[in-house]
Parts: sequence; structure tokens; C-alpha cells
Amino acid sequence: MEPRILSGKVLSGEIEQELRRDAAALTAGGTPPCLAVILLGDNPASHTYVRNKIKAAERVGIASRDRFMPATTSQAELEAEISALNADPAVHGILCQMPLPEGLNAERVTRLIDPAKDVDCFHPFNVGLLAMGIPRFYPCTPAGVLELMSRNGIEVSGQHVVILGRSNITGRPLSLLLSHKGTDATVTVCHSRTRELATLTRQADILVAATGIPQWVTGEMVKEGAVVIDVGINRIDDASRKQGYRLVGDVDYATVAPKTTAITPVPGGVGPMTITMLLRNTIQAARMAGDSSAI
Amino acid sequence: MEPRILSGKVLSGEIEQELRRDAAALTAGGTPPCLAVILLGDNPASHTYVRNKIKAAERVGIASRDRFMPATTSQAELEAEISALNADPAVHGILCQMPLPEGLNAERVTRLIDPAKDVDCFHPFNVGLLAMGIPRFYPCTPAGVLELMSRNGIEVSGQHVVILGRSNITGRPLSLLLSHKGTDATVTVCHSRTRELATLTRQADILVAATGIPQWVTGEMVKEGAVVIDVGINRIDDASRKQGYRLVGDVDYATVAPKTTAITPVPGGVGPMTITMLLRNTIQAARMAGDSSAI
Repeated sequence: MEPRILSGKVLSGEIEQELRRDAAALTAGGTPPCLAVILLGDNPASHTYVRNKIKAAERVGIASRDRFMPATTSQAELEAEISALNADPAVHGILCQMPLPEGLNAERVTRLIDPAKDVDCFHPFNVGLLAMGIPRFYPCTPAGVLELMSRNGIEVSGQHVVILGRSNITGRPLSLLLSHKGTDATVTVCHSRTRELATLTRQADILVAATGIPQWVTGEMVKEGAVVIDVGINRIDDASRKQGYRLVGDVDYATVAPKTTAITPVPGGVGPMTITMLLRNTIQAARMAGDSSAI
Repeated sequence: MEPRILSGKVLSGEIEQELRRDAAALTAGGTPPCLAVILLGDNPASHTYVRNKIKAAERVGIASRDRFMPATTSQAELEAEISALNADPAVHGILCQMPLPEGLNAERVTRLIDPAKDVDCFHPFNVGLLAMGIPRFYPCTPAGVLELMSRNGIEVSGQHVVILGRSNITGRPLSLLLSHKGTDATVTVCHSRTRELATLTRQADILVAATGIPQWVTGEMVKEGAVVIDVGINRIDDASRKQGYRLVGDVDYATVAPKTTAITPVPGGVGPMTITMLLRNTIQAARMAGDSSAI
């Protein structure tokens, strides 16, 4: 039987419709949601990411403020900009696109952003709330994974989820969210030092790949009937494409897909969900700003 | 072969010797370490805990300030006390014994304590640093478990650790600490909703029980040769004892111990380590206060 394809592209479009209504209601209520995006330097990939985030915000009716600053910006100038955005009641979400140009202190920047406007959920205070099971914001990629499963009727309660990768962006916060009371998955986090990895992955009811290694998960590592979520987006050379490359995930789709009951494609799986979750967090931040008792 | 008994009682005594030297050096350097302990009401168990913490602090040369307040203390009065301790440069660690009397907001109290003095590591900011792999303080019970293993030469890197229980005090922070880079255990967190639990526990190289259910882990749930860490401390009726009860862990010692290579006793295992780790955090807080660049 063919596996179900969990399309983040389709789902993110549906969620954007909901967010558009939410944004319109907030605007009508006098709190037009607004996302500030800071970008330093001219890294082309970062510019693409930021452009996509701003375009998506505009699609759903979230105003954006872009702060494009030169690569020569000093730490003090960057921090002054963040402080100004923190103090601006019209701004509800602030994100600073990483990586920063060399010499700047990303940790200080992350901690300076007002936790109430930290729509990436990277501030230690918000990560702490998440770890404690009382999240204010859901970090975007893990939230996208959860949403992709729940909106496709994939039950995680009582399931054994094996996560490959322990990054602070995906693997680690996803493991926390999945094992919370009320979500109730049994979670194993694997990484480069894990022994007998395939023995563990073959036990997974749901296998999440977030290693950054192209096509690393192969069919023999997957249980028959599993759900596979592929968080990876990697470029590999492909002379047959006019760009000279193609995008693949951390999963070897050709050998893995036939064993699964559901699987995310790459591209068009988790990727599009991540930006949509950023928009959802911005709407939520605007809602909390409009209702000060919620903070 | 008899398992090795991982005695927290013996080890905590050894670590106290080291902490006594650290405290003396700090005092000689003009920063006598000081722990403030707040206790509201007259819950006998809480009084015992607090008394034990204060006695242990005094043993190693940490000054203590006890703030015993009536059960009728208002939220505002409690918060004023914490703010005063936050502002007092002679106080390095602050803990507020839980649970609070009914009607008081524990969450607000936890967040009010200066993170630099949060020696319990309960503040969301500190929990976040821990989750991000850059802990300032190690929460006491998980730190005690790690120390008990490392000082007994039990290697956790590459081992499969199965943790039973997902509390914010033990299971969850321990899972984060164990899977950090440099510690490198492969960690599975199990809980009341986990299916086929024994299948998972029987795969554990190291099994940690933190469920609060007396003698729940039995021999058939444990792999031959495993290391078993019992975090539970439960009273069960025992008419043969003059108190009418005895203390048991979450592990059924009689059936489990013969299968292990090493096991913690209850009492005298993880329990004594917890207070010692609180003292270590207080020393560390005093050190950071003396060296402002470290914060």
C-alpha cells in the first residue's frame, strides 16, 4: 500500500487561511500584528530565508518591519536596535536571523530579545517554560512537526517516537514537547554517539530524522508500518538539474517510503510548516500584548 | 556476583570534604558563602528537610539564613522577603521550600528568585540554559545521580539510559543532562502512558526509577548486568518497625539487585547526594558572585 504523503505545503496553506482571519480580527480590534525581522550582512541564504518570512507574514496580514543592517554593525548598534523594538508596543514579534557576522555575540542577542516577543522561542526563559511543560511559544520546527501529525490524525499518545538528532532547534525541544503530559509519547533521543542505532530506530512507531546528513536513514532502519518525519533539507549535486543540485532530506525516500504508512516529502514537508508556525507565534504574541493578563 | 552498592551516604561525605575546603577558600577570599532558606508554615516534613539542609550547610562552612514565616504570610510579604534576599550581596543562594501553604503562587515565587541565586535550578531561565546544554546550575537530584555514577566509574557515554518518570524535578532535567554533548547517553523517557514498558526497560544499560511508586520496578523488568539508580523514597507500613513504617525506593530491591552490576540503596543512595549538590550550587553561586565576569 502506498504511504500517505504528509504535505506541509498543502497544510501550511490551510493554516495560513486561519491565521489570516486571526490577523484580521486582531487588526479590527486595534492590535494589528507586527513582526520585526533583523538581518545583518548579505549572506544570500539568510536573505532568502528572511524574504520568505516577510512574504509569508504579508500573505496573512501580519505587518513586517525589516531591519537590514550592514555586516559591519557593532554589537552595541545591534543591541540598541533590539532594545528599541522591545520598547515599541506596536511590535509583537522580533527575530534576528542567524548566523550573525563573525565577531558578534549571538547568545547576548538571544537573551536581549523580550521573551514576550521571542517568536522563535530561543530565549532561555522560553526554552525553560517549554522544558517545564508550560510553553508560552512553541519553537517553530518542532511545532510544525507536531501540527503536521495532529492535523493528519496521527496519534502520538503512547507511541514510541525515536528522534535522530539532539539540536536545540529541533531534536531536543521536540523531545520535550512530545513527552509532555497530554501529548504522552514515549521518546528516545539518538545522536552520533548512539550505539546499535538501527535496533532503536526499528522500534520506532514514529521516526523523526533531524541529523542534517543527506539520505542517511535507509529502509532497513525502519519498522514496517512506521510514520517517518524528515526534518532535513540538504542540497546534493545533481548534474541533471539546471541549478546543478537537488534538495533531499535526511531520509532515503526511495527505500524508506515503501515501508511506511505515512511520510513527509522533501521539499514540501516540514519546511513550509516552520514559517507558518512563526506566523502563528506572532499572532499569539499580538494577542497576548492586547490582553496583558495573558502574559 | 554481588552488585556494587552505590552509596550516596559515603560519597556525599567525601564531597562535603571538598566543599568544606572550597567554602574555607571563599571565606578567606572575602566571600563567605551564604544560603538563605525560606520556609512557610509548620509542615513537619518540610521542617525536617529544611533542618537537614541547614545542618549540611553548616557542616561545610556555608552560612545559612533561615526565614521561617507563618502559614498566614501573604504573597506580597513572601515576595518582599525574596526581593530583599535578591538584593543582599551577602546572600548567594536562595531556596524557598515547597510546597507553599494553599493560596500562594509558587510559580511567581520561582520566577522572582534571582536566577544567579537559584541554587535549586527551578527558575525557567536556568531550566532553559540546562535544556540548551549550557547549564549554570545543575538541578540537585539529577546532579546527584550523575555524580553518583561518574565518581563510581560508571560510564554513561553511548549507554542506553531508560528513565522512568518525567517530573520537572528529576526525570526531565536528568534526560536533558544525560543526552548533552560530552555526556552522550542515549536516553528514553518512559511514563504512565508508555506501552510495552518492560520491553524498553529490559534494553536499558542504565535504568533510573523516578516514579514515586513503591517497589514498582521488579527483577523481570531489568536486563542482566544493568546499572539501576533508584530515586524514589517512599514510606510503606511495617509493623515490625518501631516507627510503624520503613523507607523503600521505586525499585523492588530484592528481585532487582541480583540482576545488576551496580545499584543504589534506599535510603542512603540518591537521597544524601541531593543536599550535597545543593551545597555545591551554593558554593558555585558564591564563586560567581565573587567573580562578576562569570555571570
